[in-house]
Amino acid sequence: MYATLMYGPGDVRYEQVADPKIEKPTDAIIKLSATCICGSDLWPYRGLSPQEGPAHMGHEYCGVVVEVGSEVKTVQPGQFVVGSFCLSDNTCPHCRFGFPSACRQGEFMTGAQAPYARVPLADGTLVATAELPDADMIPHMLAASDVLGTGWYAAYAAQVREGGTAVVVGDGAVGLMGVLAAAQLGAERIIAMSRHADRQKLAREFGATDIVAERGADGVARVMELTDGVGAESVLECVGMGESMEQAMGVCRPGGTIGYVGVPHGVSFDGQRLFFKQQRMLGGPAPVRRFLPDLMDRVLKRAIQPGKVFDLVLPIAQVAEGYKAMDERRAIKTLLKLD
Amino acid sequence: MYATLMYGPGDVRYEQVADPKIEKPTDAIIKLSATCICGSDLWPYRGLSPQEGPAHMGHEYCGVVVEVGSEVKTVQPGQFVVGSFCLSDNTCPHCRFGFPSACRQGEFMTGAQAPYARVPLADGTLVATAELPDADMIPHMLAASDVLGTGWYAAYAAQVREGGTAVVVGDGAVGLMGVLAAAQLGAERIIAMSRHADRQKLAREFGATDIVAERGADGVARVMELTDGVGAESVLECVGMGESMEQAMGVCRPGGTIGYVGVPHGVSFDGQRLFFKQQRMLGGPAPVRRFLPDLMDRVLKRAIQPGKVFDLVLPIAQVAEGYKAMDERRAIKTLLKLD
Repeated sequence: MYATLMYGPGDVRYEQVADPKIEKPTDAIIKLSATCICGSDLWPYRGLSPQEGPAHMGHEYCGVVVEVGSEVKTVQPGQFVVGSFCLSDNTCPHCRFGFPSACRQGEFMTGAQAPYARVPLADGTLVATAELPDADMIPHMLAASDVLGTGWYAAYAAQVREGGTAVVVGDGAVGLMGVLAAAQLGAERIIAMSRHADRQKLAREFGATDIVAERGADGVARVMELTDGVGAESVLECVGMGESMEQAMGVCRPGGTIGYVGVPHGVSFDGQRLFFKQQRMLGGPAPVRRFLPDLMDRVLKRAIQPGKVFDLVLPIAQVAEGYKAMDERRAIKTLLKLD
Repeated sequence: MYATLMYGPGDVRYEQVADPKIEKPTDAIIKLSATCICGSDLWPYRGLSPQEGPAHMGHEYCGVVVEVGSEVKTVQPGQFVVGSFCLSDNTCPHCRFGFPSACRQGEFMTGAQAPYARVPLADGTLVATAELPDADMIPHMLAASDVLGTGWYAAYAAQVREGGTAVVVGDGAVGLMGVLAAAQLGAERIIAMSRHADRQKLAREFGATDIVAERGADGVARVMELTDGVGAESVLECVGMGESMEQAMGVCRPGGTIGYVGVPHGVSFDGQRLFFKQQRMLGGPAPVRRFLPDLMDRVLKRAIQPGKVFDLVLPIAQVAEGYKAMDERRAIKTLLKLD
């Protein structure tokens, strides 16, 4: 088959590779219904994270099981499944504690920007639907795999509560999903920090009640003004840069919580400053598997439409253009069509 | 009157000063029943925190109100009161959110290592008892003012829960109070990291179920062994040094929480490392006022005896020796007797 390989910064190719096959008895092979490009794929694309090339790309996926290893019990060929980018056994103490992202057997998914993919730890990782979903459900189901799950975790980590105030820093795909999650979790006020008209519009659609276009100190001042000088009790940091973390810390009230899901790049914290800020913090790769059944259920009930975050759809053969469009911020998130 | 002044590192004197008087209509003057020396007083004593000398020392206090300003409504002369080292109005949004330690009018108490002290923001800060407590209650009441309240906050911040596992890093007075708090909050397993026999004994008395005498990597390994390789869901960091924070991070499970109450000195965090650790963190000066009514109630019911943490009692005129004994670790915590 053909698959997506990154040879180095800016160099993504759709090339012939070996077909994936069952390597361990706990593996499954799925035929992808659709796949997509993640904001985190842009780190190596921009040369900001080291990566050995050529690397198989893609960790967001949903599709139909075509083959399972001899030990796989909970999914079978023909079933539609969604999985997390964090592969997990769902049985170890960390999984049972709600952190499959720290699974003892855990590894990260790769190779999903392709028509077929191997999913290790299939029993623990994949969640099947009762029936094959309608075609219009596919983008929403795909979103659940990572971007929605990550935004959801940001809201969970930030302790968004019914009637509360949340600030979302970052208007990328994850930030927008954070807005959606905060709304679903009952936040009364959701302040989205966004400079781009199209993203502001989507943020409002997902539930933002206020938009702050200013950044840096001006952005912080504006949020403080909107919250009567108090700040927000929940802040979702969905970028991972020093500037965005400063913004998050600037708008979080003492005793409030920052959930940060953008992988920090060049971010460090002074212990004494953090101490006197009195802000609760929780970050990490999202334990999506924990939320997946609930998220898929909300999608199937048509309560949420996270797939709206895909504003560019390309045939997978044009994956390189998909990366380029996201890198140049012409697209929020690219869905790659198969067949 | 005489009071405690710190002229510089290692130089503490009991000297004649002006009597405290009402300066603002929200002040109260109290006659102290007892006072004490805090672990945090040792930072400037050791030259590790800058401090302009001569500085009036002391921020832990309980006693009888002798005079109040014209606007003070909730306490009156003759009442026995306990207050926090964080002075607070108890009405601002941060106080109402449970963080009087971030009170908009807040300031830190000083001058309590003396027979009389001025307490600003008396209405918000002081909690009165219905009757004058028995003399044997005084050390326990005094402990509630800071060291118990801070240990309690460490347990709260670390999200200690009924049936859970807590590790306490640091066997100073605050760490020992953290053990007591974790026990009161229902932790089933409390692992105290302590090298000193006398402190280990007190830790057990306060509710520690396990003692780990090893430090550094060995200490972490021992705790991991005790927790089947999982780590603890709640970790109380009660020191504030780089090494102790490392220990806390080393024994906290993914998804677990570190409550840190030792003012960090020379501690910094790498954002990406913190992210992948997936540990929730909350630190800060303890919002003791929030816990004070409950803590005083537990003391009066004789449910807890936090005053046991005072292992040296001196007349206040010997305050310099009290500092020296704590600095040299001959004493855990010094109570200073008045009259």
